[in-house]
Amino acid sequence: MDTDRRQFLQAAAAALAASPWLAQAAEPAAPAAEPHDMSAFPAHWHGQEQIAMLLYPGFTALDFVGPQYMLASLMGAKVQHVAATLDPVTSDTGLTFVPTLAMKDCPAELDLLFVPGGGQGTLDAMRDDALVAFLADRGRRAKWVTSVCTGSLLLGAAGLLKGYRATSHWIARDLLAEAGATPVDARVVRDRNRITGAGVSAGIDLGLTIVELLRDRLYAQSMQLLAEYAPEPPFNAGTPRTAPKEAVELMSGMFTGFVAGSRETLRRRHGGG
Amino acid sequence: MDTDRRQFLQAAAAALAASPWLAQAAEPAAPAAEPHDMSAFPAHWHGQEQIAMLLYPGFTALDFVGPQYMLASLMGAKVQHVAATLDPVTSDTGLTFVPTLAMKDCPAELDLLFVPGGGQGTLDAMRDDALVAFLADRGRRAKWVTSVCTGSLLLGAAGLLKGYRATSHWIARDLLAEAGATPVDARVVRDRNRITGAGVSAGIDLGLTIVELLRDRLYAQSMQLLAEYAPEPPFNAGTPRTAPKEAVELMSGMFTGFVAGSRETLRRRHGGG
Repeated sequence: MDTDRRQFLQAAAAALAASPWLAQAAEPAAPAAEPHDMSAFPAHWHGQEQIAMLLYPGFTALDFVGPQYMLASLMGAKVQHVAATLDPVTSDTGLTFVPTLAMKDCPAELDLLFVPGGGQGTLDAMRDDALVAFLADRGRRAKWVTSVCTGSLLLGAAGLLKGYRATSHWIARDLLAEAGATPVDARVVRDRNRITGAGVSAGIDLGLTIVELLRDRLYAQSMQLLAEYAPEPPFNAGTPRTAPKEAVELMSGMFTGFVAGSRETLRRRHGGG
Repeated sequence: MDTDRRQFLQAAAAALAASPWLAQAAEPAAPAAEPHDMSAFPAHWHGQEQIAMLLYPGFTALDFVGPQYMLASLMGAKVQHVAATLDPVTSDTGLTFVPTLAMKDCPAELDLLFVPGGGQGTLDAMRDDALVAFLADRGRRAKWVTSVCTGSLLLGAAGLLKGYRATSHWIARDLLAEAGATPVDARVVRDRNRITGAGVSAGIDLGLTIVELLRDRLYAQSMQLLAEYAPEPPFNAGTPRTAPKEAVELMSGMFTGFVAGSRETLRRRHGGG
């Protein structure tokens, strides 16, 4: 590293230390001790993105929090956790979150809309006309429309994936065809301004992909390092291709009602896809 | 698969479908439609664990939610999200959680205690005598004492890692020596009943490790499949060994104050480790 580069990094690190999480969440843990010194960073490391991440009853918390870790790192961005109202929202695993913004107060023009998945809660959300109308409205105008897991079924219910390649949780991926999308078996799928992730843990990969798009590769690599994202799954069971047959049967059987209900709901909303 | 095995799986999947998240969180998203049929499962798939997961201001949400996804899957277990009081707790990325239990109401005899990490918030927690005393008390008696990321510094501050091998976020790992522990560079480290994970995303690996210990391998593999945990990091920057030097310098520089403060706090609590 040359001296200039090293001096830049030292100044940047010092500025970051004053305020390690630089996206402005509406209700930060504590205000930064002092405004960070923006001049320490390359201009393109700053943004002014308006980001809305959707919360709804029964969503999967891990779908949401992987991307949130990454998006909250975007200097200058404003990340909102948006729900129907400001009432606390409980996830499918019983974790309760306090939203920062109600849908009615969500900016009309978003830079990025993010939707997490879930099971029965996601199916209920697909059937919720107000929620689907909100997604259709904000998604139609957002610069980036993104999801993890069965969040893509919600995007599909809102008509936002018609004509796009997209992915979802392995249990639900084929259902995307009912929303006029082309299902793709991949960890993260980008088609124009739609970026969809596979099931649950794929949110970390999706988040890093977005950070690189909105900032640059070094920024995203730094976030991967901060998350110590060098995964070592203790088994090789993360996809139906590699998992024991018993596990596939057990997990598929758990969601037959969800799959049937989602298919019916998407058909009803799209007249057959 | 033989017919008996298939029948078991079909019955088990049907029972699971009635209540996909089977740990009893104190405030579930919605009560299960009907009690699941316990007779569909092998006896050792049920537990009665009392699990306490700690929330404190400025913790890292992803440290918490990876393990929470896995622990919430443990049939029969009771998972509590414990904080000083029932007031909402905001993470370092501005995500606000509602606890299910205040420390004073936490069972004295826990099967599993889990502590997430963070930055400044974790340092503040290490300096919080009431929180450290709570951890020392519950940790001394718990069957399993676990952490992710700099959560192990908090365990160390409470005297729970003295004489144990343990790990932490790469930024903080060497500090464990100040608490009388032997730092180990590994994703998940188990020494007797202490199980510690590396930084942030290691919580998923830790969670699966715990599910196998408390249930069995098929159970854990099923959860890996449900989480679609077949990671594909877009870069190879997850550890200081593989990340670009610039990223390592930037992220290390961000935490010099945290490291110095943590070292001072651990020395004060342990008289030099």
